[in-house]
Amino acid sequence: MGLGNAGLPLAAVIANHGIQVVGVDIDRRRCDLINSGKNPIPHESGLDELISRHGGKELVATTEYRDASSCSVFIVIVPLFIDENHNPDFRTLESSFRSLGGVLKRGDLVVLETTVPPGTTEGIALKWLEESSGLRLGQFYLAHSPERIMTGCSISRLREFPKVIGGVDERSGIVAYDVYRRFIPNLRLVSSARVAEMIKVMEGCYRDVNIALANELFRISEELGIDFYEAREHANHEYCHIHMPSTGVGGHCIPVYPWFLINEMVRRERAENAVMLRTARELNDRMIHYWMDRIIDACMHIDKPLAEIRICIHGITYRQGAKELHHSRNLALAKLLKSRGLKVGAHDEMLSREEISKAGLEWMDPKDADLVFNSFELSVKLRRHREAPG
Amino acid sequence: MGLGNAGLPLAAVIANHGIQVVGVDIDRRRCDLINSGKNPIPHESGLDELISRHGGKELVATTEYRDASSCSVFIVIVPLFIDENHNPDFRTLESSFRSLGGVLKRGDLVVLETTVPPGTTEGIALKWLEESSGLRLGQFYLAHSPERIMTGCSISRLREFPKVIGGVDERSGIVAYDVYRRFIPNLRLVSSARVAEMIKVMEGCYRDVNIALANELFRISEELGIDFYEAREHANHEYCHIHMPSTGVGGHCIPVYPWFLINEMVRRERAENAVMLRTARELNDRMIHYWMDRIIDACMHIDKPLAEIRICIHGITYRQGAKELHHSRNLALAKLLKSRGLKVGAHDEMLSREEISKAGLEWMDPKDADLVFNSFELSVKLRRHREAPG
Repeated sequence: MGLGNAGLPLAAVIANHGIQVVGVDIDRRRCDLINSGKNPIPHESGLDELISRHGGKELVATTEYRDASSCSVFIVIVPLFIDENHNPDFRTLESSFRSLGGVLKRGDLVVLETTVPPGTTEGIALKWLEESSGLRLGQFYLAHSPERIMTGCSISRLREFPKVIGGVDERSGIVAYDVYRRFIPNLRLVSSARVAEMIKVMEGCYRDVNIALANELFRISEELGIDFYEAREHANHEYCHIHMPSTGVGGHCIPVYPWFLINEMVRRERAENAVMLRTARELNDRMIHYWMDRIIDACMHIDKPLAEIRICIHGITYRQGAKELHHSRNLALAKLLKSRGLKVGAHDEMLSREEISKAGLEWMDPKDADLVFNSFELSVKLRRHREAPG
Repeated sequence: MGLGNAGLPLAAVIANHGIQVVGVDIDRRRCDLINSGKNPIPHESGLDELISRHGGKELVATTEYRDASSCSVFIVIVPLFIDENHNPDFRTLESSFRSLGGVLKRGDLVVLETTVPPGTTEGIALKWLEESSGLRLGQFYLAHSPERIMTGCSISRLREFPKVIGGVDERSGIVAYDVYRRFIPNLRLVSSARVAEMIKVMEGCYRDVNIALANELFRISEELGIDFYEAREHANHEYCHIHMPSTGVGGHCIPVYPWFLINEMVRRERAENAVMLRTARELNDRMIHYWMDRIIDACMHIDKPLAEIRICIHGITYRQGAKELHHSRNLALAKLLKSRGLKVGAHDEMLSREEISKAGLEWMDPKDADLVFNSFELSVKLRRHREAPG
């Protein structure tokens, strides 16, 4: 259920193990592509080959849940968005589980792969399934195994990276483990679905906090006239893993997961249990203000009125190499500068003029700009400049 | 200059490379021990052998700076304490540098190994030396090479661990690098003393922030009924390094270094550049309140008035295996419980009854306690208990 960036590579890997897979997705065009052996995710290494080999054969894509009614294992890997208060919007997930309940039979296994707040699988996911199927846990099995893919290298991740799986009860865990180890070589059974959920969320929190720390140490280094990258290179060793600085953290994963824990702690009147996560999240989101100030500082060197300086943000996707604008801090930075009245345009190797315009920005050739901010290199370059004043 | 836990292993390693070393320390008894071939730091692996081989011969200890007047390389590795506002107390360092200035000659090299706020070596340390020696930089050389020892394995650290060195000017860096590589196999020249200082401080910040994150994820896991240790085991891999939880961070190093940066940012009106460091520092220091609550919660299971329950804190040194109470959070936890009026005693394998009493606590045999909190295992054990009420 879900043939997106995470679901399709998994479906293809399972099919490649000689197991018949039915993939359900709402996107009919995507289904048609897959069934004709064409890969709809071009940048995913190794996926072209698997789809051309199995698409329409061992892997059949469909928009209809009933086409999956003969299956005995159901893997749910649909997106989970968060609303403006950083709470999960469970509607897509609920709709998938309720549709799935309509075809669920005695003895079937359901595995949720979408990253969710700890407690979701044993809580609402189980409730949705029981309500829609008329069956009780024990008549079917339910487990959680968080996807650990990374866009671009999902196939090798599935083949090599450790993957965890945990059941909502002991029997579910064992059944799910036995199924998954047929196609996941590095599989680990953990004590519960909740622990499996927490493992994935904790990983995201580690990343977010350590990117925030890198951003903070970068800012302090700049303030003290120290080359952060030189210091980082020598500080890092077996026990020290200082990350790289950035304009913040974008995409659907890392900026989302910490809120699962922060909001749950607030609901329980335990907000003091999530101060690191909240501070890191806010710092990373506020990094665009730091870079705005750095860009405006650089305008001091341009011999033109501030209102006439043409600024180009080079790179507006959320990270280099991923054609994705969700929670992109580079896009947010450009819009922030624009909201200050500055003349801002954008350039991105992965996006056309139309796509940039659709994102709410003007396309600008870096050659026509007075100042170019490279979002991925974090460099500010001037085209026409003068000596610093004062 | 300074034959403490960091200075003595370094002096012994240099002597073992066939270089004549004069060690200066204010502690006459320690000097006498070393000169008779006896190691004053018993738990330091490999040090006994080096001191017995070189003590009083290649390594001569003395309380007088003038005994070092024939030396041409001076290494300063004296303690730096911080005051109640978390600002460094430079008095010991200043006194060492000024005394050293009295014996400094043209062509000599001075290397500071004490971890200091970035900018200290090129700033006040250079000033002290120039003022007290009457020489100018260029007539002598000055560099920084932060000690990276760890109590118990300092010798192997010096032999294997990467060590950085940076000069206050280019020539000083080159001269210092050429001297140090005679006895440090894994040596790296960095662009300045300031970068060398920052490298060490950044390492400490990484540790403090990641211990705070581990403490936070532990608290959230406990709240959600998740086994933190199980989740951590599976979350950690090549790109994820979640640390271990604790009662906080003690000793002379990690809890001190973040304040170097936090306070400097406050002085520059840039406090917003150090929010992660401050949040982590405060969270780690506040962990004793969390553990106090956990201990009081456990008292609910003891069939006695709260005021009569005997509580034993097992382990009050700042970490297991180090006989050191400086900024010990375990000691602070015991005192916090005592300040609430609870009957608290302490037990520690590394400390005698008298040493525990000197630390302001009563010695207590864990066998005589109703509740034992093991500070290193983070376990609460009850001796006489009843079913939980309610």
